[in-house]
Amino acid sequence: MEASPDNIQVDERGRLRHFLSIDGLTRQTLLQILDTAASFAGVGERAVKKVPLLRGKTVINLFFEASTRTRTTFELAAKRLSADVLNLNVSASSTTKGETLLDTLRTLEAMHCDMFVVRHAHSGAAHFIARHVAPHISIVNGGDGRHAHPTQAMLDMFTIRQHKGEFAPLTVAVVGDVEHSRVARSVLQALRTLGAGEVRVVGPRTLLPPAPEALGVRAFTDMHEGLADADVVIMLRLQRERMQGALLPGSGEYFRFYGLTEERLAVARPDAIVMHPGPLNRGVEIESGVADGERSVILSQVSNGIAVRMAVMSLALGSHADASR
Amino acid sequence: MEASPDNIQVDERGRLRHFLSIDGLTRQTLLQILDTAASFAGVGERAVKKVPLLRGKTVINLFFEASTRTRTTFELAAKRLSADVLNLNVSASSTTKGETLLDTLRTLEAMHCDMFVVRHAHSGAAHFIARHVAPHISIVNGGDGRHAHPTQAMLDMFTIRQHKGEFAPLTVAVVGDVEHSRVARSVLQALRTLGAGEVRVVGPRTLLPPAPEALGVRAFTDMHEGLADADVVIMLRLQRERMQGALLPGSGEYFRFYGLTEERLAVARPDAIVMHPGPLNRGVEIESGVADGERSVILSQVSNGIAVRMAVMSLALGSHADASR
Amino acid sequence: MEASPDNIQVDERGRLRHFLSIDGLTRQTLLQILDTAASFAGVGERAVKKVPLLRGKTVINLFFEASTRTRTTFELAAKRLSADVLNLNVSASSTTKGETLLDTLRTLEAMHCDMFVVRHAHSGAAHFIARHVAPHISIVNGGDGRHAHPTQAMLDMFTIRQHKGEFAPLTVAVVGDVEHSRVARSVLQALRTLGAGEVRVVGPRTLLPPAPEALGVRAFTDMHEGLADADVVIMLRLQRERMQGALLPGSGEYFRFYGLTEERLAVARPDAIVMHPGPLNRGVEIESGVADGERSVILSQVSNGIAVRMAVMSLALGSHADASR
Repeated sequence: MEASPDNIQVDERGRLRHFLSIDGLTRQTLLQILDTAASFAGVGERAVKKVPLLRGKTVINLFFEASTRTRTTFELAAKRLSADVLNLNVSASSTTKGETLLDTLRTLEAMHCDMFVVRHAHSGAAHFIARHVAPHISIVNGGDGRHAHPTQAMLDMFTIRQHKGEFAPLTVAVVGDVEHSRVARSVLQALRTLGAGEVRVVGPRTLLPPAPEALGVRAFTDMHEGLADADVVIMLRLQRERMQGALLPGSGEYFRFYGLTEERLAVARPDAIVMHPGPLNRGVEIESGVADGERSVILSQVSNGIAVRMAVMSLALGSHADASR
Repeated sequence: MEASPDNIQVDERGRLRHFLSIDGLTRQTLLQILDTAASFAGVGERAVKKVPLLRGKTVINLFFEASTRTRTTFELAAKRLSADVLNLNVSASSTTKGETLLDTLRTLEAMHCDMFVVRHAHSGAAHFIARHVAPHISIVNGGDGRHAHPTQAMLDMFTIRQHKGEFAPLTVAVVGDVEHSRVARSVLQALRTLGAGEVRVVGPRTLLPPAPEALGVRAFTDMHEGLADADVVIMLRLQRERMQGALLPGSGEYFRFYGLTEERLAVARPDAIVMHPGPLNRGVEIESGVADGERSVILSQVSNGIAVRMAVMSLALGSHADASR
Repeated sequence: MEASPDNIQVDERGRLRHFLSIDGLTRQTLLQILDTAASFAGVGERAVKKVPLLRGKTVINLFFEASTRTRTTFELAAKRLSADVLNLNVSASSTTKGETLLDTLRTLEAMHCDMFVVRHAHSGAAHFIARHVAPHISIVNGGDGRHAHPTQAMLDMFTIRQHKGEFAPLTVAVVGDVEHSRVARSVLQALRTLGAGEVRVVGPRTLLPPAPEALGVRAFTDMHEGLADADVVIMLRLQRERMQGALLPGSGEYFRFYGLTEERLAVARPDAIVMHPGPLNRGVEIESGVADGERSVILSQVSNGIAVRMAVMSLALGSHADASR
């Protein structure tokens, strides 16, 4: 069920067809996404926040798992590209009638949709759908199980580049439940592909990957060591189920050792930026003062998320338009 | 509560105002719908899948019964005609507050909506609404109880004409729970109005209409006899409540006698087409090999469904526009 | 938690920025809303029911409390102004993940939305949000607890002016649960600001404000006296919880004393109009004959509601556009 690094995401000329995971994409493709997103970043500031690029295209938010926040960002991005958007909560509809996933896909394909944004509780679901969907449809992974959340990773990369310029000189610390986080997984792959200088993972042993060196990262169980001289601190959201499980003693205990406070942040570089994918658990993984402080770029991440999703959507559909119509 | 064949569906010049049931419409009107749909069939294939015909019109999906699939097809059709679409789940909203159906209608009328697509669990609901709605509103029946599902019937007719040309020489077998199916009821009426050569219903006695001759059809309880030399085989979806009820011994038993297999299909004409309104119960009323096989036109039906709904919507609103504005 | 009459609703030049309550707005501002709504009233009658005023703007229906009816009117108004509209049921989404209200606001702000239509069960919620939101966002109150429902009040004023012209000569009776109604509260403020001649509140003692003179109104517990020579009768909806509570003996009893019948209405002026915010409790606060009778302007209220909401949205966003872009 793991993503294989085959070229399903790009066409024979290397252009983006699906956007499923960072794994399997080249540095050049990631930079193209960032550059395209930069061209969209100003659209949200305009009086008329729309460009006609995807007029007459149909984008389906195919959500097998509810996520208002993610759905909203993709819906906004699609509408600002002038696409028609339909929201489908598939679990509610088709499981009731016993239809198979493939039948659902075939039916939506036959309606001449152009893109499915897929959100699913199971790892690999977006890849599975991309492998079985008709050639005229692009799949964008809006988060699948513990596997990947590549648009989140790219908006993080966009935000880092916006504040720091080059990736090569940077020390980036990813803090929290790295092992079980699809965001972390995609972020680590993106940082590696874009050539970040040093990438660290920080957290309790139970929440860190068992073989960090295989991922090209350094592991720290101590916040002081992990944050020392960092340029970028990416906090992960602590999942509620983790707080109650056997892996952690409790959220208060967690904050005591791994919550990001001003004091802890002091060991990072003076111009370090703090990131978080949201929504925040204030007082669990991050102190409110830090979340709202001047080194926080959390709200920039949200703004950039619209531009990055517009970029991914227009690139993927542009490749199709060119290739097959 | 049965549909009366009065002329509520057409205006004084015979043009479509509402689309409630096949019953009461002339061959000429059905052909006009098919011809108009043919002109829209290419829209789904274009890069810009929109025509401006209903720009500035407001279409309400007025669903008293949930159906994501049907809602999606009407929403897509309306958006491709450039209409504004609102989805209203009426059961959820107004029963909570104790508002009557007529008050709901009056309120939506006063908002200057142009069309209600009505889905309701009770037979006759769409007719009832059409009789009580303001003159400037068109009603399209999106399925009402066991009564009618006329857009489904018309997309079936479109698909038959697409593959077979004329209706007169055709032998068409409708297989399954004919007696309780709104799809079957509308399909049989459409086939008769369009002059299909021979129309058969096939299924266990308990699921066939008690007086088939009154419907102008021949009844068969044996699949081999019913499918012999058929040009078109329309499979019906077996409703789950039917599988557990007294009318049928169970879904395995049903498949053994009435499931469509390659072997059974062999007695039909070599160029026979197989249709199904979806969603499929694979292994209950149809074998997967047949559903996905080369004689299956099930996915064409889905594509054609968008074009047919665009045709019905634009014809009904065109008549209004012409008559009253 | 009460609204303070500060100038948060208008900018330094007195133009509408937020629309939270009638309280705090001048007669001139209310008249501007009515005049602007008059210019939109014809849009609903046109073949193309759209104006491009808010093209490229993003309106979020931010509903912390479900209300299909109110959501629909704002969605329609926004679409007829050509805005993009997103519906967010916030209770369902963010409480699940434990995000704070302010984090939700910050996130939506960062997505470059232009307007939030806020519906909330708590009084003062819209003001709270307006005080904490970024300067580029306009807030429209779609009903907050028992506090205010100002668009409802303005559509009532529009309807009165449409039928009666001037406010000064009018006697207006507001009947029902005045004390607990956000509609009544906003209506009484609007009538006072617009200079209605005499304003009365009518109902059982337990449902009337304790100090009517402080509101500039006369209180009546007898329908005959309260309706005598009235030009306008505004019936309030009796909330279900009120029918079961200690304040009222029951809905039958209520109708016997305070239900609006033809007979009771006879003491009002012959050209009196009857209004109701909907949805109706037929036979509880109003007799069907009156609700559907020739003095009822209830459906005009609904139509006018779209025009008034278009007016409020375009004025509030126009002020922003002018000031900051």
